[in-house]
Amino acid sequence: MRIRPYRKSDARHLVGLIRALATFESLKPPTAAAARRLVADAGRRFQVLMGEEGGRKVGYAIYFFTYSSFLARPTLYLEDLFLLPDFRRQGAGRMFFDALLREARKRKCGRMEWSVLDWNTPAIRFYRKLGARPLAEWIPYRITF
Amino acid sequence: MRIRPYRKSDARHLVGLIRALATFESLKPPTAAAARRLVADAGRRFQVLMGEEGGRKVGYAIYFFTYSSFLARPTLYLEDLFLLPDFRRQGAGRMFFDALLREARKRKCGRMEWSVLDWNTPAIRFYRKLGARPLAEWIPYRITF
Repeated sequence: MRIRPYRKSDARHLVGLIRALATFESLKPPTAAAARRLVADAGRRFQVLMGEEGGRKVGYAIYFFTYSSFLARPTLYLEDLFLLPDFRRQGAGRMFFDALLREARKRKCGRMEWSVLDWNTPAIRFYRKLGARPLAEWIPYRITF
Repeated sequence: MRIRPYRKSDARHLVGLIRALATFESLKPPTAAAARRLVADAGRRFQVLMGEEGGRKVGYAIYFFTYSSFLARPTLYLEDLFLLPDFRRQGAGRMFFDALLREARKRKCGRMEWSVLDWNTPAIRFYRKLGARPLAEWIPYRITF
């Protein structure tokens, strides 16, 4: 698998993969209007890395830069990391993390962060092996409009 | 108290308030180099609202826009909300939240999010009253460089 930055021509593949992730997480897939917004916002409001194997788009990462006022440094925040089921357990997840960590260092970030659903044990095992730690003392809160 | 956008002339007051928040959370205050980065990054890498009462800077909010690939909408993320101890329990926190929720709606966000330390019971009570809900099933992970 090869990891490369998103191009405009990836739009329908990206939407297809986001749809596949929603199914995996038992969430509703994007509506047609949401798919249009994703395509318009890609590369502007969020950044994308695509995973490609033999021309086939097999995975993607969506990330953006948040900020730590404590460190006074940007943080690379990984919003989604998804691989089609057939392309897991072959080191592709690790390749994405390596690419993202390189990008974070290049941008002088102090941290890289993401969130995981608490039932996703294989992912959590993987994150622990990477040297990541859970922020057990912090509770995320949300208001949805 | 009056809430208004950050101006360059607020720089040293903002750093002073960030220092006061670090003390409140038993964290290390920003170094001189971090304070310089904060001033350079304010309004560029993150946005700030200042709370002012009779000319005195009594609180601040730092926020930025993340993105929900699920909603295909930006999220207003509140990184810090801080009020000097003498200015709490008088509705100022609510004023900050109202201003931030207005900003989030103006920018067509789907959500507003933030995190809270699990021992901060007064804050959690306040967030519940606002109609926010904890994302109990999500665990934040971090790699620090």
